[in-house]
Amino acid sequence: MSEPLRELFVREKPVRLLIEINNPRTENYASELSKSVDCTYSHAVRVIQRMEKNGLVETEEKGRKKNIFLTDKGTKIAKRLSDLLSEF
Amino acid sequence: MSEPLRELFVREKPVRLLIEINNPRTENYASELSKSVDCTYSHAVRVIQRMEKNGLVETEEKGRKKNIFLTDKGTKIAKRLSDLLSEF
Repeated sequence: MSEPLRELFVREKPVRLLIEINNPRTENYASELSKSVDCTYSHAVRVIQRMEKNGLVETEEKGRKKNIFLTDKGTKIAKRLSDLLSEF
Repeated sequence: MSEPLRELFVREKPVRLLIEINNPRTENYASELSKSVDCTYSHAVRVIQRMEKNGLVETEEKGRKKNIFLTDKGTKIAKRLSDLLSEF
């Protein structure tokens, strides 16, 4: 996967975050997701809030943490982004 | 198409430029393309050079202008980007 080419078209961290949320796993928390895609916790939280506001993810309180999961719309966009990245 | 959501994931001008090159038309010149996607001529030229370096487009001298067309790889990525934008 060519790094410079991909970066010409997509915003690396938000794209990887959405795809990462779509990975099969029991629970998704901002702290783990930020580590997986190598961005700061606060950046991950901001991006996830924008995704939630736009109906791509929903969150569910789990004690002091929030479990994050994709909506149907989010799943479709994650799929399209994966398809796109596979071309690079 | 939701503007803020799309902008969370993609870089607007390069994406629109590539899709625009893929539009059926006899010839593509940087000057016309930059007008179509509403960016500066110099930005369009820089982006097109990066696309060419990465094998997405080829150019052909036409007098003082360059005709720009997509390679197979460029066509595939343009298609994936169109598919992606259609979800927003």
